[in-house]
Amino acid sequence: MSIPSFVIGIAGGTGAGKTTVSRTVAETVGEAVTRIPLDNYYEDLSHLDYEERAEVNYDHPDAFEWELLRDQLDSLLMGQPVEMPQYDFEVHNRKDERVTVEPSDVIVLEGILSLFDEQVLEMLDLKVYVMTDADVRILRRIERDVIDRGRGLEGVIDQYLETVKPMHEQFVAPTKKNADVIIPEGANRMAVDLLVEKVEAELAPGDPEEDDRTFPLEVGEERPTRVDLESTNRSDD
Amino acid sequence: MSIPSFVIGIAGGTGAGKTTVSRTVAETVGEAVTRIPLDNYYEDLSHLDYEERAEVNYDHPDAFEWELLRDQLDSLLMGQPVEMPQYDFEVHNRKDERVTVEPSDVIVLEGILSLFDEQVLEMLDLKVYVMTDADVRILRRIERDVIDRGRGLEGVIDQYLETVKPMHEQFVAPTKKNADVIIPEGANRMAVDLLVEKVEAELAPGDPEEDDRTFPLEVGEERPTRVDLESTNRSDD
Repeated sequence: MSIPSFVIGIAGGTGAGKTTVSRTVAETVGEAVTRIPLDNYYEDLSHLDYEERAEVNYDHPDAFEWELLRDQLDSLLMGQPVEMPQYDFEVHNRKDERVTVEPSDVIVLEGILSLFDEQVLEMLDLKVYVMTDADVRILRRIERDVIDRGRGLEGVIDQYLETVKPMHEQFVAPTKKNADVIIPEGANRMAVDLLVEKVEAELAPGDPEEDDRTFPLEVGEERPTRVDLESTNRSDD
Repeated sequence: MSIPSFVIGIAGGTGAGKTTVSRTVAETVGEAVTRIPLDNYYEDLSHLDYEERAEVNYDHPDAFEWELLRDQLDSLLMGQPVEMPQYDFEVHNRKDERVTVEPSDVIVLEGILSLFDEQVLEMLDLKVYVMTDADVRILRRIERDVIDRGRGLEGVIDQYLETVKPMHEQFVAPTKKNADVIIPEGANRMAVDLLVEKVEAELAPGDPEEDDRTFPLEVGEERPTRVDLESTNRSDD
């Protein structure tokens, strides 16, 4: 594989369509892509009880363990596997077990604050902000939380107005300035094409690393082409 | 050459950096690029006298001859040369002489309203909006008009507040919604790279048109690689 990996950061507000962009890029690029949700790096809050954890402001940058993210991104970039934390949105806490993530040609870091941390920004080769109108975003969040997950509409609205919206305006939206490109409205095919062409140009034959695009596998293990570390039950972002 | 050409529209407010993006793309793409300033399609106002022409609102869509632009883009796309009008910003009017523009692999249409007209939008393969803060844009306009061109500061400010700003908000800024990608702050190298990679992927070997990328030249005529139809004295955009 290529070392260092090509790293894309995809940021944007809740419901902006980050996951759709990230997933489409991963499915279209003909190389091994590892998608890393920033949510996996929510701080370990085991010292708090459930009620206290439920009160935490998960839209504030302080909710994330940046140091761990930086270290693990750095390791992956250097071609070393990492033991990545997993997050459980049901209990608002980090899971006990970690997952081994192998380095890959392309890494996609996705999350509301992917373009926030100065040191993370320096590790990103391509910085993307998905920009979607706030009304469309809250409607998507309501669909996800109320319709898909059966949460109360009133609680979703309160959380949105009390923390999600102000934190978005204070911390997320300004990171648009850190983007190389802004993609309007998530699932725009041409924009995804541009990202994919860029990734493929970076990893194209002619690159001296090209012929070395392999990494150690256990006997019988299939070579992963796409690694997806998404939580299946996200509700805090 | 490839038929139809690959057409990029680059829109954005005054002082956004459209020309810088367009020029950098043209210089970087290894194919024949024709840059078309939308300003060339300002309506012919010969029926008005100078004072009347000076009063025209050049930031309103009605200031442009859209029908002519559509026809000429269409011809270029079909591989036919056109006789393109030229605009003289000094006298606020179309020049008497037109210029012959040959079709080319890549056409870049640049101007505040490049993403405005429905039929023009359908002819664009890649729609780009250059998004720059209004304060940075007006400072660039002041630099250009006052410092470089010796116009009075008060007149520049009045024109900005009376027409440029309201027309921008009413007609230009909403065309951001028509963009495939938004480029923050003009001369961002990664964004230009993305555009160039896309153009080159579209025109890459393997394309059935590839080997036919020639067009008739007069004996002794040099094959143009970049055609630049920029006015040298723009002041109305």
